[in-house]
Amino acid sequence: MSLTNIRTVRIEWGDCDPAGIIFYPRYFEIFDASTAHLFEAKLGFTKHEMFKRLPFAGWPLVRTRARFLKPTRFGDDVTVESTVTFGRSSFDVAHTLSLKGDLCADCTEKRVWTVRDAEGRMKSYPIPGEVLATFGAAPTA
Amino acid sequence: MSLTNIRTVRIEWGDCDPAGIIFYPRYFEIFDASTAHLFEAKLGFTKHEMFKRLPFAGWPLVRTRARFLKPTRFGDDVTVESTVTFGRSSFDVAHTLSLKGDLCADCTEKRVWTVRDAEGRMKSYPIPGEVLATFGAAPTA
Amino acid sequence: MSLTNIRTVRIEWGDCDPAGIIFYPRYFEIFDASTAHLFEAKLGFTKHEMFKRLPFAGWPLVRTRARFLKPTRFGDDVTVESTVTFGRSSFDVAHTLSLKGDLCADCTEKRVWTVRDAEGRMKSYPIPGEVLATFGAAPTA
Amino acid sequence: MSLTNIRTVRIEWGDCDPAGIIFYPRYFEIFDASTAHLFEAKLGFTKHEMFKRLPFAGWPLVRTRARFLKPTRFGDDVTVESTVTFGRSSFDVAHTLSLKGDLCADCTEKRVWTVRDAEGRMKSYPIPGEVLATFGAAPTA
Repeated sequence: MSLTNIRTVRIEWGDCDPAGIIFYPRYFEIFDASTAHLFEAKLGFTKHEMFKRLPFAGWPLVRTRARFLKPTRFGDDVTVESTVTFGRSSFDVAHTLSLKGDLCADCTEKRVWTVRDAEGRMKSYPIPGEVLATFGAAPTA
Repeated sequence: MSLTNIRTVRIEWGDCDPAGIIFYPRYFEIFDASTAHLFEAKLGFTKHEMFKRLPFAGWPLVRTRARFLKPTRFGDDVTVESTVTFGRSSFDVAHTLSLKGDLCADCTEKRVWTVRDAEGRMKSYPIPGEVLATFGAAPTA
Repeated sequence: MSLTNIRTVRIEWGDCDPAGIIFYPRYFEIFDASTAHLFEAKLGFTKHEMFKRLPFAGWPLVRTRARFLKPTRFGDDVTVESTVTFGRSSFDVAHTLSLKGDLCADCTEKRVWTVRDAEGRMKSYPIPGEVLATFGAAPTA
Repeated sequence: MSLTNIRTVRIEWGDCDPAGIIFYPRYFEIFDASTAHLFEAKLGFTKHEMFKRLPFAGWPLVRTRARFLKPTRFGDDVTVESTVTFGRSSFDVAHTLSLKGDLCADCTEKRVWTVRDAEGRMKSYPIPGEVLATFGAAPTA
């Protein structure tokens, strides 16, 4: 019934800037992928499959905040721990990114579950019960 | 009847790597955008509009080659000159990227003009006559 | 004595994801570059020159928050307005990103002014008086 | 004595464009990282360590060519096989990228081994004998 996923990510040369440390927009790429990996780990299929199997058209970000505490560098294998909290048609994900046990960055994101309306536009939609069930989360009243 | 477009691009801090010079995949991002700007300059509307106004589903790259002769750095305003040569359902674009008159990189790309088939898959398609006409190019027999 | 800079940025095809809208880490690339352009506009030289002319080794991000209100798409020319507020050895930048007058995203960032210590490590450092003077900002007590 | 390394790479949502397939500059990011992983696998330490342990200041790309045969999509776990051939102060790397046994892209790159000269500029330099030895490659006459 875990709502958390942990993965390891290698920081690459191309993720780093002339200061020799990670260029921080790359952290958001890592966090975005970590949200997808969290759902994949629980649902048992990829985000690509989610579009086919679920009422789902993406989970656009509404807002985020992040702190950058210690820099990371190319060659670092960082640990990203991601935890989801479900609302009705939105959810929050908290990410921590650490290196050898030291917290380097953390982030929270609020995302909206969407489907396409008849005109093809994305609109918010209640998170499907089967998704909540897979995470062991009770539906929100 | 020009088949060439010239634009200026600023190399940013985030485009550069720990060696202090541009991370070369960023050049391909610049060249990809330069192809879009070339068509926009001639057609008078953006790639986004092309999807609405033309039989068009993208121009995936088939192959490319590039040379990197002199490095560029953040703060450099480089000049990209892009020239298209049309085939029947494919086209070639040659890009040169220079700084203060010195050639820094060049690239050629072969792309395929596509539309979506009934199942939504991309398939190659003859370049529309109105596109060729706008460029002043004769249709290929 | 303005502390604000405005620039226009084209959202490119390669900035967008399979939902057809901008992939949000690209917004942070835009904001990071906008901070550099703000300083360049006031100082009269690029960030690359700042490393040579000033006690300066970069302005790593300490924290950021952002909201994403309306999506943008490839072909959109968005307006980014960036305003700095100076502390002693840190500064805040507030960015708004709008399309045709509609606010699409906003962001605040806290950055630290750094120099290299004797061992080559980045350490925080008071923002040079000449920088503050150029912005017409009074030094912080 | 193998000169080849194989790794698996997940294509992420953020690597893909509005056509739903990988944005091709991301392939070059993958290939660049694959070259680093190839050396790391043979040397037993990361590129970051190479700067400390070897006469080494990076391996800038001189030229590359690539073919894109079949598209890949987010959620795909692709296999990248990278093989190096050494010259005196340059080397070639050939990469193939495949999905479930189907070749999707291939690439060759020519890179130069560099060190910093007295003024801090990168200059080409013979590939160190200990590197060649680790790869089981004979020094080039």
